[in-house]
Amino acid sequence: MTDLAHPASTSAPTLEQVAERAGVSRSTASRAINGGLRVSPEAMESVAAAVAALGYTPNRAARSLVTRRTDSVALVVPEPDERVLSDPFFAGVLNGVSTPLARSDLQLLLIIARPGESERTARYLRAGHVDGAIVVSHHRDDVIDQALAGSHLPTVFIGRPLVGGDTAAVVDTDNVRGGRLATEHLIGLGRRRVATIAGPSDMSAGIDRLAGWRAALTDAGLPADAVVSGDFTVDGGATAARELLARFPDVDAVFIASDLMAAGALPELAEAGRRVPQDVAVVGYDNSGLATTTKPNLTTVTQPVIAMARAAGEELVAQLQGRAPLGVPQIFEPELVVRGSA
Amino acid sequence: MTDLAHPASTSAPTLEQVAERAGVSRSTASRAINGGLRVSPEAMESVAAAVAALGYTPNRAARSLVTRRTDSVALVVPEPDERVLSDPFFAGVLNGVSTPLARSDLQLLLIIARPGESERTARYLRAGHVDGAIVVSHHRDDVIDQALAGSHLPTVFIGRPLVGGDTAAVVDTDNVRGGRLATEHLIGLGRRRVATIAGPSDMSAGIDRLAGWRAALTDAGLPADAVVSGDFTVDGGATAARELLARFPDVDAVFIASDLMAAGALPELAEAGRRVPQDVAVVGYDNSGLATTTKPNLTTVTQPVIAMARAAGEELVAQLQGRAPLGVPQIFEPELVVRGSA
Repeated sequence: MTDLAHPASTSAPTLEQVAERAGVSRSTASRAINGGLRVSPEAMESVAAAVAALGYTPNRAARSLVTRRTDSVALVVPEPDERVLSDPFFAGVLNGVSTPLARSDLQLLLIIARPGESERTARYLRAGHVDGAIVVSHHRDDVIDQALAGSHLPTVFIGRPLVGGDTAAVVDTDNVRGGRLATEHLIGLGRRRVATIAGPSDMSAGIDRLAGWRAALTDAGLPADAVVSGDFTVDGGATAARELLARFPDVDAVFIASDLMAAGALPELAEAGRRVPQDVAVVGYDNSGLATTTKPNLTTVTQPVIAMARAAGEELVAQLQGRAPLGVPQIFEPELVVRGSA
Repeated sequence: MTDLAHPASTSAPTLEQVAERAGVSRSTASRAINGGLRVSPEAMESVAAAVAALGYTPNRAARSLVTRRTDSVALVVPEPDERVLSDPFFAGVLNGVSTPLARSDLQLLLIIARPGESERTARYLRAGHVDGAIVVSHHRDDVIDQALAGSHLPTVFIGRPLVGGDTAAVVDTDNVRGGRLATEHLIGLGRRRVATIAGPSDMSAGIDRLAGWRAALTDAGLPADAVVSGDFTVDGGATAARELLARFPDVDAVFIASDLMAAGALPELAEAGRRVPQDVAVVGYDNSGLATTTKPNLTTVTQPVIAMARAAGEELVAQLQGRAPLGVPQIFEPELVVRGSA
């Protein structure tokens, strides 16, 4: 972001002038400008006013009083706490974005916008308390996408937003291709009744993986009707598996749109007496740590989460340094990882 | 926090005066004051200066331009990402603090101060970007404790800080008593060679649980020398268990200072041919979800994490509303939960 000179400023004002106008000592003014250690709220306020009126901008702290720079960026996750803290995907995102931000000495703030709290978070982000934002795992009904798209705040989306993101920078993986890779692998194994446990229908990852599954089956002239939806959680996967077996007892393969859901589905298949992969072949998604702990280990689709997140962090830093947002999405390729489940 | 009037303000200035002084339209001034939607950085800046100079304070957003209120608070966790995202303790903390903050319409910012990044986080917190902070899982060498203790920022510590926290509000559980409860249970079972896998020696929880173990053994006239330290992680628990069996092959009981470490230690005990509880009785700590997934299920010590975290959030909100920090720590009692491992 460019270092804006204050409109009213003609010559460069000194710290002494700030202190004088604020009616405080030079050292108090200095402490106020450099973080406010041992400075009363009243003095903070007078110095802030003096700095703003004189356009005094010696360093980051003071500049933040005038241009409202905070040297912090938000990683916004519109999900329930439990999901953020239990899904390894978010650990990868945090890991990936942290590196470029730390290099630029930007403080990362993790904001978990729980259901029903998106409005306040959108207000907070628009109010200029952060210099930029990275949004991941957003849902169609979030007000956050629109709020950021409508604001001046530099923003990068990890995962294509369903609305409001036309103007924002996007880092994503090709989820349609990922769903297709998984399904073509199952078809290649000779399976003819390939079902799917899809992700949430209000998230692009859920929609796109389902589209890839459907495209592969249609190309192969196979029915694409055995669909049950889950919520990307272990419990959701278990529930969906029970529903799937009840509605489509003849399934011989399932593409499950996340490893977490697959981890929930496998015990249900065993419970129902279906052997994996002999009776029902299973392919998951994410290649998370879980994929090598399940029995059998999961054949799954890798998405380079850390690399995507790092790219998102680098894109945001570039925007903060004044570069225009990348007009085209940065897309990372998924890869099939074959293990025991299919 | 009280609504500070600007020192320079004599009569109450109007939005029109702000707009006139800033050289923008009334609607632009209004939008700038209410979050900056569709307002240029230059206009934001002029309005901020006008608001500061005139002491215009109609609402939270404007007040934040003058008094630097942000209506946000930080939950600071000086730990590696992986630990925060894998240890259920932090999920409980997040859950507990969220409730009172949401009720007060405060935005919660989770700041993971990774090793080596404490300096920047301390700077960020002191710079007035948040109205208050809750610090959890701090270590002796963190600069964060001292930074906050030395600042005017309302702060609440979950877990007694080892330094710099004398003045700050503290919410904690009686970890000495918890370690004693666990150890007395093992002694009561007739065990005479009771070891411990202690937590980090730079954290009060690690130090206090170890002290409780030592006190119980000393009172019973039993040796208190079989000590190995871990880092509150599953891998750390496994490594510590191997070291413990090598150095103290005659142990018949172990108090392990966290369930995560116990989950790592149990497979090592089985590997070494020690049956739990017959050969080696085990008591963990935290009563996390893990405790009922291990074989055998863990006898452990409950600390009311969510209740503690909620109390910390309520204490911070009270301070933000102008109440002085509670001078005495709020201490929550631990309880022994008996299951299969001891």
